[in-house]
Amino acid sequence: MSFPFSVRNPRFASEIYSTIEDLPIVSPHGHVPVAVLQRDQYIEADPARLFITDDHYVVRMLYSLGVAPESLGVVSNSGFPAGRNVKPEQIWDLFWRHRFAFEGTPSGYWISKSIREVFGLNPAPKSTEVQTLFDAISTQLRTQTASELLAKQDVRLIATTDDPTASLSLHGELQNDGVHPTVRPTLRVDSVIDISDPMWRKNVRDLSRITETEITTFDHFITALRIRRKDFIDAGATAIDIGANMVTSGRLTRAEVDALWVRACMYRADAADTARFLGHMFHELVAMSVDDRLVVQFHLGVFRDHNAAFVEKYGAATGADIPVRADFTHGLRPLLEEFGSSGDITMILFTLDESTYARELAPIAGHYPAVKLGPPWWFFDSPRGIRRYLDAVVETAGIENLAGFNDDTRNIATVRARHELWRESVAAWVADSVADGLISESYAIDAARRLTFELAIEAYRLGEPDKWKDSTNAADIF
Amino acid sequence: MSFPFSVRNPRFASEIYSTIEDLPIVSPHGHVPVAVLQRDQYIEADPARLFITDDHYVVRMLYSLGVAPESLGVVSNSGFPAGRNVKPEQIWDLFWRHRFAFEGTPSGYWISKSIREVFGLNPAPKSTEVQTLFDAISTQLRTQTASELLAKQDVRLIATTDDPTASLSLHGELQNDGVHPTVRPTLRVDSVIDISDPMWRKNVRDLSRITETEITTFDHFITALRIRRKDFIDAGATAIDIGANMVTSGRLTRAEVDALWVRACMYRADAADTARFLGHMFHELVAMSVDDRLVVQFHLGVFRDHNAAFVEKYGAATGADIPVRADFTHGLRPLLEEFGSSGDITMILFTLDESTYARELAPIAGHYPAVKLGPPWWFFDSPRGIRRYLDAVVETAGIENLAGFNDDTRNIATVRARHELWRESVAAWVADSVADGLISESYAIDAARRLTFELAIEAYRLGEPDKWKDSTNAADIF
Amino acid sequence: MSFPFSVRNPRFASEIYSTIEDLPIVSPHGHVPVAVLQRDQYIEADPARLFITDDHYVVRMLYSLGVAPESLGVVSNSGFPAGRNVKPEQIWDLFWRHRFAFEGTPSGYWISKSIREVFGLNPAPKSTEVQTLFDAISTQLRTQTASELLAKQDVRLIATTDDPTASLSLHGELQNDGVHPTVRPTLRVDSVIDISDPMWRKNVRDLSRITETEITTFDHFITALRIRRKDFIDAGATAIDIGANMVTSGRLTRAEVDALWVRACMYRADAADTARFLGHMFHELVAMSVDDRLVVQFHLGVFRDHNAAFVEKYGAATGADIPVRADFTHGLRPLLEEFGSSGDITMILFTLDESTYARELAPIAGHYPAVKLGPPWWFFDSPRGIRRYLDAVVETAGIENLAGFNDDTRNIATVRARHELWRESVAAWVADSVADGLISESYAIDAARRLTFELAIEAYRLGEPDKWKDSTNAADIF
Repeated sequence: MSFPFSVRNPRFASEIYSTIEDLPIVSPHGHVPVAVLQRDQYIEADPARLFITDDHYVVRMLYSLGVAPESLGVVSNSGFPAGRNVKPEQIWDLFWRHRFAFEGTPSGYWISKSIREVFGLNPAPKSTEVQTLFDAISTQLRTQTASELLAKQDVRLIATTDDPTASLSLHGELQNDGVHPTVRPTLRVDSVIDISDPMWRKNVRDLSRITETEITTFDHFITALRIRRKDFIDAGATAIDIGANMVTSGRLTRAEVDALWVRACMYRADAADTARFLGHMFHELVAMSVDDRLVVQFHLGVFRDHNAAFVEKYGAATGADIPVRADFTHGLRPLLEEFGSSGDITMILFTLDESTYARELAPIAGHYPAVKLGPPWWFFDSPRGIRRYLDAVVETAGIENLAGFNDDTRNIATVRARHELWRESVAAWVADSVADGLISESYAIDAARRLTFELAIEAYRLGEPDKWKDSTNAADIF
Repeated sequence: MSFPFSVRNPRFASEIYSTIEDLPIVSPHGHVPVAVLQRDQYIEADPARLFITDDHYVVRMLYSLGVAPESLGVVSNSGFPAGRNVKPEQIWDLFWRHRFAFEGTPSGYWISKSIREVFGLNPAPKSTEVQTLFDAISTQLRTQTASELLAKQDVRLIATTDDPTASLSLHGELQNDGVHPTVRPTLRVDSVIDISDPMWRKNVRDLSRITETEITTFDHFITALRIRRKDFIDAGATAIDIGANMVTSGRLTRAEVDALWVRACMYRADAADTARFLGHMFHELVAMSVDDRLVVQFHLGVFRDHNAAFVEKYGAATGADIPVRADFTHGLRPLLEEFGSSGDITMILFTLDESTYARELAPIAGHYPAVKLGPPWWFFDSPRGIRRYLDAVVETAGIENLAGFNDDTRNIATVRARHELWRESVAAWVADSVADGLISESYAIDAARRLTFELAIEAYRLGEPDKWKDSTNAADIF
Repeated sequence: MSFPFSVRNPRFASEIYSTIEDLPIVSPHGHVPVAVLQRDQYIEADPARLFITDDHYVVRMLYSLGVAPESLGVVSNSGFPAGRNVKPEQIWDLFWRHRFAFEGTPSGYWISKSIREVFGLNPAPKSTEVQTLFDAISTQLRTQTASELLAKQDVRLIATTDDPTASLSLHGELQNDGVHPTVRPTLRVDSVIDISDPMWRKNVRDLSRITETEITTFDHFITALRIRRKDFIDAGATAIDIGANMVTSGRLTRAEVDALWVRACMYRADAADTARFLGHMFHELVAMSVDDRLVVQFHLGVFRDHNAAFVEKYGAATGADIPVRADFTHGLRPLLEEFGSSGDITMILFTLDESTYARELAPIAGHYPAVKLGPPWWFFDSPRGIRRYLDAVVETAGIENLAGFNDDTRNIATVRARHELWRESVAAWVADSVADGLISESYAIDAARRLTFELAIEAYRLGEPDKWKDSTNAADIF
């Protein structure tokens, strides 16, 4: 009996997997741009853009081996926009000549799986078949809408991640058109809470404009954020998202925050001010959730733009971010003291420091009612990353303190591939845990269903899990 | 051939396990209160108190899922002692309705194993059988003494953990009554060496009273500690225990320590003073062991009372402690420079930061003669925790630098379950290590016996291991 | 089908292993002294010196169990050079009486494998056969040259690690004698860049003498280093090596470095100066590689001489070094910003903090073109260490950003044993990765060959890998 993962009892793992493999996909966090999700248009991306140029996992790996980003179609800011002139076919060819670089990586795994299962094509083309593969995928992309491509993957809900200044008009159109899948926005507040960002004042001005409020004081700022949260809720959001390079929290006094706001507005805030403002804003943003019930995601602990010259040339989020070690025990204590014991709030914590899984995050989630643990993030949403995560967190936090899975992808064609990797990994892990006496045999199938389907829906407040099995329309569900 | 753990060669693992499964239990560290161990009384706890209310692993997990501690019988300090009015049957019922929360956790594993093996009952009752199970365990608890319950688990020695101000009168009675098992006290010094504890002055006064010495100077304090160590030795102790939130050491000068003592007595010590006093006391306490040979255990690196409001309401050690990352390499260097090379002293190090296993602790234990490594502690005395520990430490420290196992339990009914989990894990690990060429096939059974029985007895200076196999009475042994 | 490692599909692992087991050994980093490698002499070491006295892994383990280093032949500096008077036969006997201490450790594994495969003898002697084994190994050592012993292990290239003040005359003799194997020096710069070393001024004077240059200013110092690099290149070097207790970098201004140099020369530099000088020198040393193309190895993050009294008595590098946690993300950022994107430079990073593998090192190597990751180092070149390494780094860095394997050994008789451990581990890991869908079945054999042979040759710029299969002489290859 073949099962795609390391497991002692493949027959039992397969049996478990068979009970979850056909569940629909409800994915509450990801990075597909809303523009890609418009109903009435065919997919604009060619195969090279879809799988290579727009995927920072792929660009950074090829860059690390000496491939110029321009030759992958990445547009340089430097006045030499070479990337624009590269033909997609050339990019595609370059990738396949470097396919070996992705052996052993989840990127290689996702791309293969997507080509095989979403496009029904052979993901291991001979060199003479590489362009044929390009053409075959292109044809499919040109003749399918995003909605159709997602339907093929049985995606029922997909969430976008959106700036506080996003118009949300596309989300508005999508929300109630009754077409599968449901698309929900997520408010990602980073651009207005990081006062060290050179664009911060402009971002706040944009926030002012879109909320049609004056923002001169900190109170105005808070009011504008409340307005925006209401807008997002109206457009279907159930969660916000905070990303930051450090793990910190702590309320400032009224006087402190007012003084800090003035320094920030005058560009006179230093690194300590940045950290203090961030830590204070964690409290403000969670406090708003007491009223509006938005789930608060924390993606913390990455040094963004580590290679500054690279980022200056190719832009942010192109694969030049490096994780740092994190200290949740001290860093989040003020926040947890204020909100951790609340039964009304949900905070979902993500980490890039695996040493915090068992040492800090599982004990925190295994105590504080308001905390759930997000799935393995970014560098760790991989076969061994998932195994390390489940091994490290469940023994202390249990299954019920986890927030299930979300795919975090930018690529509309790999949504299901990522969920399938999680599902296969979960089936293998549950089977091994039964063998180890950690999970009751009679609970195995429940455990797998909780981890792969229900927990995410519950954590993100997306209604009754069972209803998602029957309906493709959120309006029927919540 | 069935073996309860992930292992490549279950037949060989079973063969190894068969040589250790019937060894008696000699457990040199744990938290069963001495009052529970009195010979002539039946066990006062009902099943709910035994398995739920008094187990902070269980309370914190249910709290994390929104269950009020009061409904589990935890008595609140807040003037609303609701916990007192909850019937044990209700608590029991509440637990079983949340049994799924413990799937994947060692708590679930221990409770099941204890119900099945100590009480001979079915640990997976249908909902209609939950109260029957309560009654059946109750009956057994009311008709068995602690001594009988431990005898059923073949526990030959059990150690308690006791405050410096403990009377030790119960230990005195137990020590030489010849009844199985041997009960030994352990001096846990925390309450008198943590000068940030608001109760510190009271604790020192209590120490003064019980030692019948005046304690006004630091010298008096040291003298009183010596007296207490002698008392504990007279009551059978072979070890002391130090728990602290940080890893530190470093001798102060005479003048520094005297000045610090005065500040502490005047409640004027700050956080730095607390750390310096603690670090200095590590030296003082180990130095005393040069004379009296008491083994020194260090349980370091946990942020106690992380959820302060919770602790204020429900008391300490109720499951609101979160580990922190640790630095043994720098933190313990002064102590290791002074005492690490001594052949007369044994220091046993425990950690809650698994990243220190291979990076710091195994290299330290693999160099310094005075250091042994304690088994996986607290959040990590679990199937995967044990595997990670053995994988990480043995390659560098070898088997001989480990201190075997201790159960660390508060629950008299799970002592053997915890040792069995260790024994099964060790059998699986040894079998895999033989397969990997790391352990000689001819040494496999020795390795398993060392790890599960002899090393703990030797590290804690409890006499000849072989004698424990034949006798139930410490007087025959050491 | 027997395979020596934990793997799900032993047949497939064996098939993979069969394609790499006969590859020759090209080992670009290690610590065999050049004096041992002279062609025309028989090996001077007796079995006790070879396997015990000179191996700090073995000495520290026995020391940790109470064995005096003197009784292992280690010469004390304390005026009581007892070590000199111990007969090798006694040391040998003492080791075998403690053989159990090495169960579960790679030291035990290597020694057994070497005795069995290099000497063709039984590595598990009965106590009556221990001296017979000594005699049998002695005879072989006295009748074989180093060259013959290495030829038996099919070692084609071996690199030494040499001080900046090394004469290189022996390397000169060895380089072009056409005898197998090729021996290459490596410039290890630590002794002249660590200004906290009490011998630093003497070391700089020695550098001055051997380069026949005056060194009074920092510029002179840089010039002397350039001269030495040229000398090493002339003697066959392709790499330098930097070892340091901390992970740091950052260029100083001209004025800062000149002032710092003066303080260092006057013995007035403090700890911060030491760190700043070190960090600056990283830049200087990598900058020189832009011109001379030497590969730069970084072995960072170990607290040397942790047990100062021990080191004072027995000397450095005798097994008293303890790793510390590391921060590559912040520590190396200035260096990576300056040189990380260069296609001309190769920096190979080694760590003793495994928590940095997936969190920092793999993301760094998976982005910066100039960075490769060295294999598991020191405490981690072990079966489980290798597995953890491959699991943690490949998913993010891929296979192509690794620098293959080097044995790092001081013991001429265990070179192949260490490579075989790596090869077996790689075969098992690749087989499991194919089973997990992470590596294509069609790439499995390529992946194994890359990891065990080609990547190291390429990373250290040692010519065409394929040529090493046919020739034993570097002159034919590069």
